[in-house]
Amino acid sequence: MSKELVFGHQSPDTDAIVAAKAFSYLENKLGADTEAVALGEPNEETQFVLNHFNEPAPRVIEKAAPEVDSVMLVDHNEPQQSVSDIADVTVSHVVDHHRIAGFNTAQPLFYRAEPLGCCSTVIYKLFKENNVEIPAKLAGLMLSAIISDTLLLKSPTTTETDVAVVKDLANIADVDYETYGLEMLKAGTNLASKSETELIDADAKSFELNGSTVRVAQVNTVDLAEVLDRQAAFEAAAKDENAANGYDLFLILATNILDSNSELIVVGAPTAPVEAAFGKKLENNRLNLPGVVSRKKQVVPPLTDAFNA
Amino acid sequence: MSKELVFGHQSPDTDAIVAAKAFSYLENKLGADTEAVALGEPNEETQFVLNHFNEPAPRVIEKAAPEVDSVMLVDHNEPQQSVSDIADVTVSHVVDHHRIAGFNTAQPLFYRAEPLGCCSTVIYKLFKENNVEIPAKLAGLMLSAIISDTLLLKSPTTTETDVAVVKDLANIADVDYETYGLEMLKAGTNLASKSETELIDADAKSFELNGSTVRVAQVNTVDLAEVLDRQAAFEAAAKDENAANGYDLFLILATNILDSNSELIVVGAPTAPVEAAFGKKLENNRLNLPGVVSRKKQVVPPLTDAFNA
Repeated sequence: MSKELVFGHQSPDTDAIVAAKAFSYLENKLGADTEAVALGEPNEETQFVLNHFNEPAPRVIEKAAPEVDSVMLVDHNEPQQSVSDIADVTVSHVVDHHRIAGFNTAQPLFYRAEPLGCCSTVIYKLFKENNVEIPAKLAGLMLSAIISDTLLLKSPTTTETDVAVVKDLANIADVDYETYGLEMLKAGTNLASKSETELIDADAKSFELNGSTVRVAQVNTVDLAEVLDRQAAFEAAAKDENAANGYDLFLILATNILDSNSELIVVGAPTAPVEAAFGKKLENNRLNLPGVVSRKKQVVPPLTDAFNA
Repeated sequence: MSKELVFGHQSPDTDAIVAAKAFSYLENKLGADTEAVALGEPNEETQFVLNHFNEPAPRVIEKAAPEVDSVMLVDHNEPQQSVSDIADVTVSHVVDHHRIAGFNTAQPLFYRAEPLGCCSTVIYKLFKENNVEIPAKLAGLMLSAIISDTLLLKSPTTTETDVAVVKDLANIADVDYETYGLEMLKAGTNLASKSETELIDADAKSFELNGSTVRVAQVNTVDLAEVLDRQAAFEAAAKDENAANGYDLFLILATNILDSNSELIVVGAPTAPVEAAFGKKLENNRLNLPGVVSRKKQVVPPLTDAFNA
């Protein structure tokens, strides 16, 4: 069997980086020849995690086809979130926890998705099913990914399985997950040192919604005022991104990870489906979204419905 | 949790019927409220299986949305192979062993696919992972599905896993699988009593290939001459089906299950990609395909490539 690359989505978050490392480790234990790579540099939170567990950042690739015939996707499946030449390689495996959209293959494949809080939780189950032991360092990385995706088990995407897996991984890694988790999340909210463009690029995904290309960025903070004070600059950065990349609409979900509330900044058109999705009118290009912390569960589904209405 | 329906593809074969029963049984054991139904009456092979194990045929449904909000698909994912109102319900679970094509959801879901010979083999693994015992009767049904899909473990889709699972299921069901399997396959090849339209409808699937709707029917036999003697009538029936349903191309794969050879009868247009797919010129509207027994592995992938070339 020839070598395959394993990677998460563009603008990688902690789960995208860690899930690739974890699944590559598992597949290699099961006899495959894989390398975990990434479609971008680690963000500050992920860098904190890698430093904490003394783990190197994965190699960043621009294209897959020059290196391999076949790839394994983790934490995503939608082609526009994947490597730029995804159409030129065969996808042999997918492990994910998102909706399925625009993903097509010519051949049967291994596809494992579950509606859990984190892709690393699904991969934990694969380790158990295959009776492969999780090393302490990898357990620490996977624990970090689940804390990141579930905002320390507080996001509505969190399931009982995520909670149980976090506890088991914390035990294997010998980490006090609550103390460590808060420290880790705060490391990802150091906004002052970054430009608005960097911030809306760090955790952003594109969605094709009934003919419109909608970009949804999430910016985590411990103080929403810190984001809203820079609103004009965020809007200018989003407008530039729309023009440069052909996005119709740019949504910036600014989320307070301490009290689980968000403000949504809306740049571009159409705005009517966004207002319809949340049942509110834009004021100063913003919607206040109390209790909303999950792009996947609380933003994309109502948007999809509103665009298709 | 409200009730959900579980079903396989249209024109159900033994795996489509059995996988629905098996997955529904498992989900109910795990706490769900499901009913296994079917999108058509059992074919002769499946009826033989149900009679042999004294199992009733599933209820046939035309639509899902009048009954339930949410469904579970087995042995298929492509919308045109599913219930007619699939767009009006939520798909919560898929268990499959085919390529993924045209399948899109708004929400995360449970999706389990593996490139194994039979969907019932994947479901066997789910029973094991969840520590649910397979009753003897269900083991007999699942065994039958794997024998059907793999032509008694001779199809190139057969994996080591399928072979091991057949042996375990035969043990649980207390069946001599080789003797039983041949008897079962022969029960599905009673062609004399059926019209050409019935025969090309019994195990047929539609594929969207680069803008063309291609219908691929498979007719199993123990004597290819029995099919080829009726070629003119088969072509007329396929032509009628094309006109009635808007198919561009109708392919009839007549397969000798004893020696694993096929003849492909081609009705409609374009024929050039069919010739390109198999590197042969049509003669008398036919291609001779020695060693070809699997629509999924040996027919659809080269066709897909040829249509996209």
